[in-house]
Amino acid sequence: MGSKIDVIAFDADDTLWHNEWVYYEAKQKLIEQLSPEYNPQDIERTLNEIEINNLKYYGYGIKSFGLSLIETAVSVTGGVVSGDEIKKTIKSIKEMLVAEVPLFENARQVLEILSPTFNLMLITKGEFIEQKPKIDRSGLAGYFRYIEIVAEKNSQTYLDILNKINLQPERFLMVGNSLRSDIIPVLEIGGQTVHIPYEDTWFHENQVDPHQEIGFYHEIEDLSQLPGLISGINAGFD
Amino acid sequence: MGSKIDVIAFDADDTLWHNEWVYYEAKQKLIEQLSPEYNPQDIERTLNEIEINNLKYYGYGIKSFGLSLIETAVSVTGGVVSGDEIKKTIKSIKEMLVAEVPLFENARQVLEILSPTFNLMLITKGEFIEQKPKIDRSGLAGYFRYIEIVAEKNSQTYLDILNKINLQPERFLMVGNSLRSDIIPVLEIGGQTVHIPYEDTWFHENQVDPHQEIGFYHEIEDLSQLPGLISGINAGFD
Repeated sequence: MGSKIDVIAFDADDTLWHNEWVYYEAKQKLIEQLSPEYNPQDIERTLNEIEINNLKYYGYGIKSFGLSLIETAVSVTGGVVSGDEIKKTIKSIKEMLVAEVPLFENARQVLEILSPTFNLMLITKGEFIEQKPKIDRSGLAGYFRYIEIVAEKNSQTYLDILNKINLQPERFLMVGNSLRSDIIPVLEIGGQTVHIPYEDTWFHENQVDPHQEIGFYHEIEDLSQLPGLISGINAGFD
Repeated sequence: MGSKIDVIAFDADDTLWHNEWVYYEAKQKLIEQLSPEYNPQDIERTLNEIEINNLKYYGYGIKSFGLSLIETAVSVTGGVVSGDEIKKTIKSIKEMLVAEVPLFENARQVLEILSPTFNLMLITKGEFIEQKPKIDRSGLAGYFRYIEIVAEKNSQTYLDILNKINLQPERFLMVGNSLRSDIIPVLEIGGQTVHIPYEDTWFHENQVDPHQEIGFYHEIEDLSQLPGLISGINAGFD
């Protein structure tokens, strides 16, 4: 049992649009650039190690990843990589920051269906300077009454957002691909959740146990199933 | 005329502790590394140009500056800079991110004086991953009832903060070194302000006209003058 839903919040990256691909492409470019002289698997392993080691300095996001790409080029080549090669990686980083935002097939249609009935919210994790332009480029901003760009998605983050709009948690439903960021913290504060797994979600985002005693958890395969699910939930209270 | 003050908010960088110096030092390291082969003035001019050009991609902060430092090394050397040289710049960037946080001489003492009487707030602009560790390293976090890390300091930012704590603007006083970020937007919403100019504040932060028709503006030379100023303001309402 839940409550009738007032506000539906969506995660953005890999929930409404594809995002992981920009990281994948930039990594592939570096590998192509340095191979066959350097082994692709070595490059990939070194990048993973450097990325994890740099998290404590840089955190997440494209600039952090970009600095790790450059460090990888230096490390893999034993310091002989040239400035001209580094220049290509700097170009990749800038391309990532202005890349197109490929919407999920049903994203616009689903927002179109839901926006007349519900207050829609977008809650995305990351730096303002990286997330805001993507939201603008997505063309979806107009569907959202509220847009929140947050540094972390933990239960306090969601509580702060609900306090700001003066909403009870059980009338709030969060839709997203990450158990760690979109689902667990919302369940913890008594909100409702819809999990839509994304094939390529980075392993770190899903290293948690989804089974919780409190809250309301749903899982669907595809965004297009969301309007049906929600009218099912709300119908119980008419 | 104002109102009795309830909450005193402080900017952090170059208001409570020195911050500009980490940028200066990293720049000097690059100049030393590349000179005398490359002209220091050319390096500095190139860096300035690249930084300004990159703002639209990267925004502000240490990682952004770091990527511009690397691009400068590539550009100034016409692409012949080696990976080993780039490695030194990557090291500089990481050093910036974990640099000590040198407090202003009177910072701790002033917070010690004010914290029993007022609710103190810290409002700092920047990325969470860059600002949070500095706040922790400063050793000052314990004085603040509220700590806010924000992407932009505009009037909406301040309104949102005041709404969250349910405070009337005239009972809010903001202390900071930047007219653009700490003073003007607070005056615009009817808050009180104390400007403490910092010698090295980046020109972009002070390219505004401080003369406003509304609000309450004070200027002091040094943090140590703040408790006296505030008891003067509040005495009028006893």
